[in-house]
Amino acid sequence: MSIAAPLDRSLVEQIVREIVLAQVGGPPGKPNLVVSVSARHVHLTDQDVETLFGAAHKLTIAKDLYQDGYYAAEETVMVVGPRRRMLPTVRILGPTRPESQVELAFTDGISLGIDLPVRPSGNIEGTPGCVLVGPKGVVELKKGVIRAERHVHMAPADAEHYGVKDKDHVHLRVTSSCSTVFEDLLVRVGKKIKLEVHLDTDEGNACDIDHAASVELLRP
Amino acid sequence: MSIAAPLDRSLVEQIVREIVLAQVGGPPGKPNLVVSVSARHVHLTDQDVETLFGAAHKLTIAKDLYQDGYYAAEETVMVVGPRRRMLPTVRILGPTRPESQVELAFTDGISLGIDLPVRPSGNIEGTPGCVLVGPKGVVELKKGVIRAERHVHMAPADAEHYGVKDKDHVHLRVTSSCSTVFEDLLVRVGKKIKLEVHLDTDEGNACDIDHAASVELLRP
Repeated sequence: MSIAAPLDRSLVEQIVREIVLAQVGGPPGKPNLVVSVSARHVHLTDQDVETLFGAAHKLTIAKDLYQDGYYAAEETVMVVGPRRRMLPTVRILGPTRPESQVELAFTDGISLGIDLPVRPSGNIEGTPGCVLVGPKGVVELKKGVIRAERHVHMAPADAEHYGVKDKDHVHLRVTSSCSTVFEDLLVRVGKKIKLEVHLDTDEGNACDIDHAASVELLRP
Repeated sequence: MSIAAPLDRSLVEQIVREIVLAQVGGPPGKPNLVVSVSARHVHLTDQDVETLFGAAHKLTIAKDLYQDGYYAAEETVMVVGPRRRMLPTVRILGPTRPESQVELAFTDGISLGIDLPVRPSGNIEGTPGCVLVGPKGVVELKKGVIRAERHVHMAPADAEHYGVKDKDHVHLRVTSSCSTVFEDLLVRVGKKIKLEVHLDTDEGNACDIDHAASVELLRP
């Protein structure tokens, strides 16, 4: 069990918050469990990147994320809600995707005035929209503003270890000064994926993940 | 089981957030369980009220809280953190107390730049301070900025029902689209107290308490 040093607070607000708790040194064959906290962020299509940042613009990598090939970009956008309330600098995560999507915590949704639906990433039919403002243009999203359903990424070998399959659900127990069991994390199995739980900032703050002593996945 | 209508979002941000889930109609003798979510707020001494709002000033009741005699005041203060970041309008809760105290969620602490200790209300030795700014003056608190430890108020008869005593701990299970078990709620027993769990906004948002289907206290 080792805990990475928390990010400097100012950095936390600059870039996607990624607190990592790694459970290491268990019995042979036990997968290392990493819990990451994602602050509010945006995924964009290639087209929306060009509209917001200029023709032929490509995202610039600011920081690699734990999963290979994924990154926090240098670029940020302003997210504007229905009553012209806004979040001025919301980080973009790369790479680009087939559909643009905004992932917020409920705390963010309350400040924007958007009643967020809880959805698995990519499942955005019927969700609220918003306006994105970049340095070179504006995009009106008709849908795609969600609170991401808590989930855990894992490789087929991890799924076998835990006795679960893709789209099953597991619980996460966090032991801290504010110990909490998050129930029903969606299991997403993929090849070349590292074992990693994604919580949002409300969840990470509720259980004080920054100072957690241990994390554990439990079958319901 | 009945759920009060969520407060209008704009009202939520104006006044202390108090989402109430009442568990009613259970077996005879089962206490009604109410879960309230407290947004960031300040408790003040009489002296600090006068310094911030003027000589002989008394707090004005804006909204009665669930416990008899407690209220959200009309008055708000600005809370300023160590790096001159601030929260412009933080609600004051009455009545006044022997020591001033600021209760924030971790999300608030991050935005202010204060690393919050988790403390039972009133236990503020060695905690961080802050500056409070009112219309008539400024107070520098040397201590008193905390995240309140999750807790449940109850009367002696409730304690007997649950088989617990003052300062014991119980778990709270919230069933919703984001079901969560909050462990180790501090039990505070008092005469003339109504059964009520207090969560902060991070905890309330993490479990989507606004749309919860049921709430339940569990003995560890």
